This record gives sequence, structure tokens and C-alpha cells, in this order.
Amino acid sequence: MHTDPDYSAAYVVLETDVEDGLKGYGITFTLGRGTEVVVCAVNALAPHVLNKDLGDIVGDFRGFYRQLTSDGQLRWIGPEKGVVHLATAAVLNAVWDLWAKQEGKPLWKLLVDMDPQTLVSCIDFRYITDVLTEEEACEILRQSQVGKKEREEQMLAHGYPAYTTSCAWLGYPDATLKQLCSEALKDGWTRFKVKVGADLQDDIRRCRLIRNMIGPEKTLMMDANQRWDVPEAVEWMTKLAEFKPLWIEEPTSPDDILGHAAISKALAPLGIGVATGEQCHNRVIFKQLLQAKALKFLQIDSCRLGSVNENLSVLLMAKKFDIPVCPHAGGVGLCELVQHLIIFDFISVSASLQDRMCEYVDHLHEHFKYPVLIREASYMPPKDAGYSTEMKEDSVKRHRYPDGEVWKKLLTAQGN
Amino acid sequence: MHTDPDYSAAYVVLETDVEDGLKGYGITFTLGRGTEVVVCAVNALAPHVLNKDLGDIVGDFRGFYRQLTSDGQLRWIGPEKGVVHLATAAVLNAVWDLWAKQEGKPLWKLLVDMDPQTLVSCIDFRYITDVLTEEEACEILRQSQVGKKEREEQMLAHGYPAYTTSCAWLGYPDATLKQLCSEALKDGWTRFKVKVGADLQDDIRRCRLIRNMIGPEKTLMMDANQRWDVPEAVEWMTKLAEFKPLWIEEPTSPDDILGHAAISKALAPLGIGVATGEQCHNRVIFKQLLQAKALKFLQIDSCRLGSVNENLSVLLMAKKFDIPVCPHAGGVGLCELVQHLIIFDFISVSASLQDRMCEYVDHLHEHFKYPVLIREASYMPPKDAGYSTEMKEDSVKRHRYPDGEVWKKLLTAQGN
Repeated sequence: MHTDPDYSAAYVVLETDVEDGLKGYGITFTLGRGTEVVVCAVNALAPHVLNKDLGDIVGDFRGFYRQLTSDGQLRWIGPEKGVVHLATAAVLNAVWDLWAKQEGKPLWKLLVDMDPQTLVSCIDFRYITDVLTEEEACEILRQSQVGKKEREEQMLAHGYPAYTTSCAWLGYPDATLKQLCSEALKDGWTRFKVKVGADLQDDIRRCRLIRNMIGPEKTLMMDANQRWDVPEAVEWMTKLAEFKPLWIEEPTSPDDILGHAAISKALAPLGIGVATGEQCHNRVIFKQLLQAKALKFLQIDSCRLGSVNENLSVLLMAKKFDIPVCPHAGGVGLCELVQHLIIFDFISVSASLQDRMCEYVDHLHEHFKYPVLIREASYMPPKDAGYSTEMKEDSVKRHRYPDGEVWKKLLTAQGN
Repeated sequence: MHTDPDYSAAYVVLETDVEDGLKGYGITFTLGRGTEVVVCAVNALAPHVLNKDLGDIVGDFRGFYRQLTSDGQLRWIGPEKGVVHLATAAVLNAVWDLWAKQEGKPLWKLLVDMDPQTLVSCIDFRYITDVLTEEEACEILRQSQVGKKEREEQMLAHGYPAYTTSCAWLGYPDATLKQLCSEALKDGWTRFKVKVGADLQDDIRRCRLIRNMIGPEKTLMMDANQRWDVPEAVEWMTKLAEFKPLWIEEPTSPDDILGHAAISKALAPLGIGVATGEQCHNRVIFKQLLQAKALKFLQIDSCRLGSVNENLSVLLMAKKFDIPVCPHAGGVGLCELVQHLIIFDFISVSASLQDRMCEYVDHLHEHFKYPVLIREASYMPPKDAGYSTEMKEDSVKRHRYPDGEVWKKLLTAQGN
């Protein structure tokens, strides 16, 4: 579906007037064109942030979230979806980065150390109280206090399990596929995702190749990137069932809750679960996916949902419905961000690694000041203060549109 | 929810190189800020339209729709929702206006005269084939050929029934309410909509006042503009049931299909139907609202859905589920646009006026070159060629941001 991605990002820098010169960095990425539209929306949101006090913002974080997402005029071009919500994510990610830096903690640790009452005070429960009230959310967090310390130690020692998507993009020739797959096996990866949905015979060949290489015990997932209608998804996956995929990701439109439910029901007897979330636009969609038993794996995204605030509500709803969260990563910096959320989820919410893993894509980390650290196919908890959103100064300078040198060269080559 | 609207619009002009100097005009409006973001998205879509041939576009209109909505990079910031879909609507509205002008027909008549096969060739059935296939759509249109000529004559003679929202916005003092209501009664209006949801006691007083003025026989509708969570909607409307509203519009989040279904189920015994649609972002959401029996009145919007193309699919799905379509109007030019769709719907799809009416808001028509004509509380079918989207040249010039004289004065007054 996304045949010509050329990753790009809206990068928000919040400057402060405190003596330590603290800055907050926020990001949301796109596949190339479209970032200029998101930047325009960030500018439209700016008046809500400029000249505000960080203490006032995080002191009433629910109110601030509501202010951004329910701006009386901007709400019309959302609400809480598409461009304006991506922009909201970028702005709020910067606020969380700033807050964590001010507290001198990596974001996951800031969240882990927060008492339940303060945590839920960051969440806007509007439109989800039929499934999760503030009191229930608090109770879930209180119950997960047991064993928190041990789980934090476990994370620091062993990290959070990851899976790789870097081996099997559509369009890779079989030789590349084989090579990447055998390298990944050597590096200790045990969970692999393959892209499917363009051509059935091609899918069968590639899935057979990978399943043969990784053997029957390791985990294989499939990802259709929304290519199918509901009946087509069921038919197609029935034909790929022999390769024993754990899940089929994004079988159809991210808006189609009832469609996902129908696919889930049809594929359950084949042992295939449905996974989705990277393009689910807000907590109201996730609420319904859970209500409708439409998924078996829930894939949050730090740059599409309204930052940590909205993701907290989704983690808590997933816990209530006992559905494992397996974050979407990749893009620009998404691995850097989601690791904080999923490590927090394990320590303070889910308390389980059963059926859980976080996506990992091996690209663009070189542009980040605090890049992810993968050890034995696991995300090791970040130790630097903040949300790992900050990019290297030189990378930003070189890639800034349109005056960075990378762009200048490109535009000159195109004769613009 | 939208407490400070200050209507604004993205206005697309398609110029052609034909000798007659034909132009197509497209529009989508916002509540003020946010239009600059939509304009940015329109510019991002422009390469799909520039230097194209109108014949090629409408000759494969489904393909063109797919091209706009599935642009490999821009799709990420939607897909088919929010800013980028509003921009798609504006662009496609301009294409339809141009096409209708080229054919020398008002848009409704262009649609009415089109054979079923050509009509469905404008629709992208992606993600809705589990509910409506191309063949079924054709069959629906074929069956509605019976009596078409008579229904067209009926429309030309009597117009399409409308209701008014101009009497009872929140914030109007009771005296204003009374005055507007008695004026509307004098003008022959028989259907009235009142805004609710801010304060229950205030709602009770205002609804009683209006019901007393219009009497028990005339129709009263209520509109909450998404103010409530699901349980709150049921509770609140139970208390307003005594005023016998036909429907409660937008009781909760436009994304909450299952929430609307729960509210529908709870309010049905009270004789209150659920209406929604003005912020439903695409056909996939409407499909599910129909599947889930979540609404009793379906409110399409010409400027939020992907223009005529996507609205056609929704009209046909509504027909299949036997749910009346009652378009959303108001904003900037929305009355001008939706009248074409609903008149077509009556003549070629629904063939019924039962429980059907089109919203009317009495403002901003003075800026349009072919403003709506209301006679005896009905929309009279437009006779000029096109989609009635063209604005008066002087209005555009005066209101253009930031160099129109209206803006110049405003910005000078603000010291900008």
C-alpha cells in the first residue's frame, strides 16, 4: 500500500527560559510528502504551548491534552485523527521529553515511579468511560504494584523481547531474503515478520522459504498493510495458514472494527490471531477493537496516538481485556519512543511477557542522540533522561527542509 | 464543543485550457483556524490534478479517486480521514463541478441521467465489498429506474423537504429563541432542531419552550454535537424524552460505532432515533454504523466525505439497509452542495421521502453565485450547470487570506 516510502519527520523543539537551557524534543514521522502538512498543523497548535509553564502543563496534564485535542476551531479538522492528531502527538511527545529531562529520568522510569493517581490524571477519559473509568484505571495500577521492583530489575538485566521486520519487506529478491534471514538468526532473533498481500503465489513462496529457514519452533508473523477487503483477507490467510503465522497484521482498513472482528472470528480456528493498531487513530477505535474482540494483539504507536497520555489509556484498556500489547516500531525514531511505553507496560500494567514483543526495524537510529540498544534480540531500557526523541544536531541540520545540505543537493539535482 | 466557530473555507479553482474558459470550483469549510492546514494538504494533492485531462479523469473516476486517496506517501497522514480527506473533498468537488458544467447540467441532473454502470464506475468499493459489491450497487440503481421521471417532476414542482437549525443554537437567550421560532413558523417551517448537551436544566427549559411554540404535531430534533460519553447520552436523553424528539444527533464521538449502537438500543423504546454523520470520516465508518444498527438517520456531508464519489457509495449502502439519509448542511456552502446529492438520492436511489429531510441553515448564501432557493420549507432543484460551488468573485476577493480587504482590516486592527 505504501509503495514509495521516503521517511520524513515533523520535529518539534520546545525551548525554555530556565537556566539549565532544558529543551524538549518531539517527533512524528510520515512516509515523505505530507510532513509539510503536519508541520502546518503543529504551527496551528503552537499557541497552546508558547509561553506556558511546564509545571502548569503537567500539573493539569489531562486539561492540557483536552485543550489541544478539543480546540474549538481545530477540532473540526480532526477530531483526534489524521494530520491534526499526528501534530498533537509531536507536540505532546516534546512535552513528555521535557518533563522527563526535568525530572532527570528516562521516560519509562518517570512513569514507573509515578503514583497511580498522578498517572491517571494525565489521561482524558472522554469517550471511553463505558469501558474504563478513572477509578478502574487507578485500581488496575494499584493491583500491579505487586512485584514491580522485581520486574524493573528483570528489564534492566534482560530487556524487553523484540521481533524483527527488517528481513522480509515486499520486493526483496529471494537471495536478499535468505541472506537477511540467516544474518538475523545468527544475531539471535527468534521472531520474524514477513510482508504479504500483493501476490498470493509470491507470498506462498516467500513464507515457505522463511519458515524453512527459521524452522517450526520460531515465530512467524505476517503483515498485509491494509491490502484486503474482509472476505479477501479470510480467503488469502486461509491459504497461508500452513506456514503457521502467529498473527496477520492490518488485514484491512484500520477503521474497520467490525471487519477485523469478522476476520478474527474466521481465522481463530486456524490458530491465526489478528493484530492491528499502527494506523488506528485514537483510543475510541482501540476501545471498540477490544469490545468487539476484533484483535488478539494490540499495536500501539507513539507518534499516531496523542502521545503518552492517550497510550496510557490504551495500555490500561488492553490490560482490562487481557490483550497483549505489541507496539509498532520503525519509521523515524519510533523504536526509540515505544520502548519506553512497553517497558513501563511490563513493569506497571501488564506484569507479563506472555505473547508479548516489541517490533524492531534496523534503520535511522544513527540520527538519534540516544539510540536504542538491542541486546540478544531485546530492547535494553534507556538510561538517559528524557523520551529518547532528541536527534543529533548535525543530522537535523543536514536534513532540514529545504535548506539542509541533503535537500539542497537533491533539489539542485532536480533542477528546482 | 465548537464554541467559537468563525467559518472559513479552502476554495479550489480548477482552470482549463479549453476555449470556453470553463472552470471547476470546489470547497471544504472549517470553523476558522485549520483552513490553512487543509490548503496545505490541497497543495500536496495538486500534482495528481495539474495538467490532467478532464475526460481521462472522469473516464476512470474510480481510478482517479483511488489515486488521490491512496497516494503512497500521503496515505500515511490519513488514510481517508481528517485534513487530507477534507482536501480530497475540495479537489473532487471541483472536478464534479467542472464535469457538470461541461455537460451543461446541474450536478443532480448529471447524476440522474447517468446510467447505473457509469455511476458505479465512479465509486471505490475498497473496504465495503462485505456489505455492497459493484453488482449489488448496479442492481439497486436499476430497480430504482421505475418512476424516476415522475420523481424528477415532483422535485421540480415541489422541491425536497428541509428542516431548520437556525432557531435554536446554544447560547441564544430565550427571547431570541422565541422570536426566531415564531418567524420560522410564519415562513412555513415544520421541522426544527435544537442544540442540547451543555446544561440539562437549560435544555429542559429550552426544549419545553420550543415544543410549546411548535405544538405536538411538528417535528423536533436534538443535536448534542458529541458532548457525551455513552452512558451519559442515554441518561441525558431519557430526561429529554418528554419533548418527543425524532432524533438525537451526534450523541457521542463520531468514531464510536459501538457506542452509537448502544445508545440506539437504549433510546429506541423511548421513540428516539440516533442520527449522525457530519463528522464520520469515510464510507468504512458509515458501513459499520449500518451493520451495527447504530443509527436511524444517516447524515452525509459533501465536504467531509470524498465528494460525490464516496457519497454515492454511502447513499447506496443506506438504501440497502433501508435507512433514510438526511444530509448535514450549514457551514460555508454546504446547503448549496448537499441539495444536489439528496435530490439525486430521491429520484434515483431511495425513491422515498418517508422520514427524510435535508438540513437548512440560513447563512452565507449571499457569497454564492448560485445560492440555494428555498420555497415553502423545501429545497428547489438548482437549474444552473455545475455543483453550485462557485462563489461570487467579489466575495472571494474580499475574504481571501491574508490579502483580502476583510482580512487586512482585521489584521490591522489586531496590530499584525
